[in-house]
Amino acid sequence: MNRTAKELAELIGATLEGDGAAEVHGVAAPERAGARDLIYVDAAKHAERAGASAAQVAVAPPGVALSGKTVLRASNAKYAFAKAASVLRERVPIARGVHPTAIIAPLARVHPTASVGPYAVIGEDAHVGEFTEIGAHSVIGPGCWIGSHCRVHPRVTLYASVRIGHRVEIHSGAVIGADGFGYAHGEGRYLKFPQAGIVEIGDDVEIGANATIDRGSLDDTRISQGVKLDNLVHVGHNVKIGANTVIAAQTGVSGSSTIGDNVIVGGQVGIADHCTLESGSVAGAQAGIPTGKTIRRGQTVWGTPAREIDKFKEIYVWYARLPELAERIKELEAKVGES
Amino acid sequence: MNRTAKELAELIGATLEGDGAAEVHGVAAPERAGARDLIYVDAAKHAERAGASAAQVAVAPPGVALSGKTVLRASNAKYAFAKAASVLRERVPIARGVHPTAIIAPLARVHPTASVGPYAVIGEDAHVGEFTEIGAHSVIGPGCWIGSHCRVHPRVTLYASVRIGHRVEIHSGAVIGADGFGYAHGEGRYLKFPQAGIVEIGDDVEIGANATIDRGSLDDTRISQGVKLDNLVHVGHNVKIGANTVIAAQTGVSGSSTIGDNVIVGGQVGIADHCTLESGSVAGAQAGIPTGKTIRRGQTVWGTPAREIDKFKEIYVWYARLPELAERIKELEAKVGES
Amino acid sequence: MNRTAKELAELIGATLEGDGAAEVHGVAAPERAGARDLIYVDAAKHAERAGASAAQVAVAPPGVALSGKTVLRASNAKYAFAKAASVLRERVPIARGVHPTAIIAPLARVHPTASVGPYAVIGEDAHVGEFTEIGAHSVIGPGCWIGSHCRVHPRVTLYASVRIGHRVEIHSGAVIGADGFGYAHGEGRYLKFPQAGIVEIGDDVEIGANATIDRGSLDDTRISQGVKLDNLVHVGHNVKIGANTVIAAQTGVSGSSTIGDNVIVGGQVGIADHCTLESGSVAGAQAGIPTGKTIRRGQTVWGTPAREIDKFKEIYVWYARLPELAERIKELEAKVGES
Repeated sequence: MNRTAKELAELIGATLEGDGAAEVHGVAAPERAGARDLIYVDAAKHAERAGASAAQVAVAPPGVALSGKTVLRASNAKYAFAKAASVLRERVPIARGVHPTAIIAPLARVHPTASVGPYAVIGEDAHVGEFTEIGAHSVIGPGCWIGSHCRVHPRVTLYASVRIGHRVEIHSGAVIGADGFGYAHGEGRYLKFPQAGIVEIGDDVEIGANATIDRGSLDDTRISQGVKLDNLVHVGHNVKIGANTVIAAQTGVSGSSTIGDNVIVGGQVGIADHCTLESGSVAGAQAGIPTGKTIRRGQTVWGTPAREIDKFKEIYVWYARLPELAERIKELEAKVGES
Repeated sequence: MNRTAKELAELIGATLEGDGAAEVHGVAAPERAGARDLIYVDAAKHAERAGASAAQVAVAPPGVALSGKTVLRASNAKYAFAKAASVLRERVPIARGVHPTAIIAPLARVHPTASVGPYAVIGEDAHVGEFTEIGAHSVIGPGCWIGSHCRVHPRVTLYASVRIGHRVEIHSGAVIGADGFGYAHGEGRYLKFPQAGIVEIGDDVEIGANATIDRGSLDDTRISQGVKLDNLVHVGHNVKIGANTVIAAQTGVSGSSTIGDNVIVGGQVGIADHCTLESGSVAGAQAGIPTGKTIRRGQTVWGTPAREIDKFKEIYVWYARLPELAERIKELEAKVGES
Repeated sequence: MNRTAKELAELIGATLEGDGAAEVHGVAAPERAGARDLIYVDAAKHAERAGASAAQVAVAPPGVALSGKTVLRASNAKYAFAKAASVLRERVPIARGVHPTAIIAPLARVHPTASVGPYAVIGEDAHVGEFTEIGAHSVIGPGCWIGSHCRVHPRVTLYASVRIGHRVEIHSGAVIGADGFGYAHGEGRYLKFPQAGIVEIGDDVEIGANATIDRGSLDDTRISQGVKLDNLVHVGHNVKIGANTVIAAQTGVSGSSTIGDNVIVGGQVGIADHCTLESGSVAGAQAGIPTGKTIRRGQTVWGTPAREIDKFKEIYVWYARLPELAERIKELEAKVGES
């Protein structure tokens, strides 16, 4: 979608420096940009690279000089650029209209503005909101409720009675609402413990490819507004995740753990069952948080079992020097033996 | 399905205390239960919570007093409750009848009582047993054999010649029988080593969403009866897993490893190739078991590389005190230097 | 496909010892082989096992005596056997012809020799090359380009504009080209950073079941020729992977990391963002490579954070002896206190 620099500046709340009539129609990296692509510079050290770009218009933070370019000046340049991109880039439609091969149960309610791709299957009593797109081969279970402006990519499964808010994006291969991993042991075998809860997902959530979110057992699994889950993330039954929390790829959250708002969880983190990560806490990549552990508000933890980062580093520095410590002990023993 | 307390007590082998005519039709957590939901108390400390519930009937172990409730008394209350739930809860059907869009190869044998969902594809010579349900979009490869009363959720792939027992549940996105990760290196490249074996899965197995189980190379991959695999678990070629073993989410088992019966493997464990986990052993979450390692019968291991838990803790306690040890060495050096 | 021992010897570059007219039609493990299966022995210690096999023809390296067998002698026996298997084994076809239920967009170009399975969906302007097979339920996004002789198994998703070379095999459940995990934070929320790049995959690549490869953000994600990715591997946006690199199951590569040629990465390794693994380097299973780290050419690393293996072992040996070190410190303190 074409915009002038002036229009964009207004849309993203930036200060215009230069030619307000300059037109942009896309975004690109400086090296790949054409004249009408918008580029983005986040630090003075990249100014040269940006200066050499064919792009005419750039988003940059205060203090970064870009001679010869029209500049959209914004203190949070990356965010301003992302905002501009959300306007400039046309998203590839996931579906257009309701494909004749889509199977929509008689009592399902699909809004007339919604789109459903080829071979998608929408179960009885399911609800699909305004302008929501359901990709090819996605299976929406009976009783699911999906809000408006959602993007459900091809090959997504929603088991029965999953609730999805507005503007949610779910990537291909994600499975939401499968039974949690809960069994009762007796008579020499494992018997499924009832997995009778649902999954509830708030507005503006994004769920990565091949991620899995299990339904609650006797409680529900709840993902709050603005949460971003990367690919192959696993969320167990009864887990609660607070607003605007981000979880990187391949992390697993075991049953009945609670994660607060604005938490940042790195990749391949393992969060055992019944843990609490309070709001604003951070778990570094590959951390392992043992059963029942609480990570306090604002705390950053690393390692397995996870420790507060300063403590982790204090220990780790000596771990790395273990051969030296051992040598020093040996020398002491020699001296003390001598004395 | 409605049952009286008396009927349930008989079904689950509990002792009835109270009103045998009280009716129940579902299960719930105490806080959420209606009058006719069955609840479950596992310890005296939860008795108050259960007492405040609207539910009239509860499963509880001996010694937990619940005044005003009809109690189904069972020593293994959790197991008794799970048993009751298996009777009370009607499972959402995965498919009803054979959908006209299902593509069933001419020589496939689908039992008349089996159901096949929309767009499912069943290959030549495949066999689907009595009352088995195959979900929408599932692809059953040629020559597969699936027993009776299985639940294959939507969007499951079985490659050719996979064998599945009875009462097996396979969750959405699971892929069974893909080629194992085996190559021969020569002439500067990797060439696929033949992955000519099959996958064999015993009765009462449950396989989590997006899990992957590779076919054998020159041997077979075998998952015994009663095994429970959580979401995103990976099982490599030629692996053998014994009866009633449970493996939590995101764990990986590399090629040709053998796991015994009744083994418990936590989440995100990495089991390298050619390992042996003998029956009754336990591997804690995120443990890493190096190539060729044997974990002895009944042993519990933690950490990477995995160690017997007591040894792990003995070392770990000193790891956490490394800064103190370093300080003590420094003090010793000061004293010894002085002397 | 039937071959004589003589024909096979020529095809795989082996020296024939014995009956060149002996026919073989498949490959098998020694214990399972019939008379006309080819077997393989890689070391003298397995000669007895091979000798007892019903197979008449075996591939073996120099120095391994196999009396009574026709031997195809090759220095790299495993590779020679894999080569023979690639000739002898007929691969199960993924699709035969273009199934009438496949939905191929009007402007898509599917080569007349290509096959497309039931319910597959091929988007506008997509290209499918000669003899390529697209499995049932696979979704090929608009603008994708797929070369010749590729094997795309059932239930694979290619988002828009993914480019795939020749002889590429993609296993079921893989998702290629989903948005990378990139956000700009502002106004108390995360906003998607544009994920405008593509994914490019070279010739002879194999991608495991349920693996995910994200598209580039302002750059592209590139997987070079001969790369082998195991199941459930995650590759983030803008990642570059060099030729003939192998990555085992459940490993994750975060955004903008670069991996060279002939690198070997174990299972469950976590490679943070902006790392470099130079050509010929090796990362052991479960290693964790921190943000921005470079692993030098030919280096082998272990552990989290990853260290050169000799350094790792030097430290680790003392880690395991920590209780002893602590005891020695205690004894020193006793002596020094005495003195």
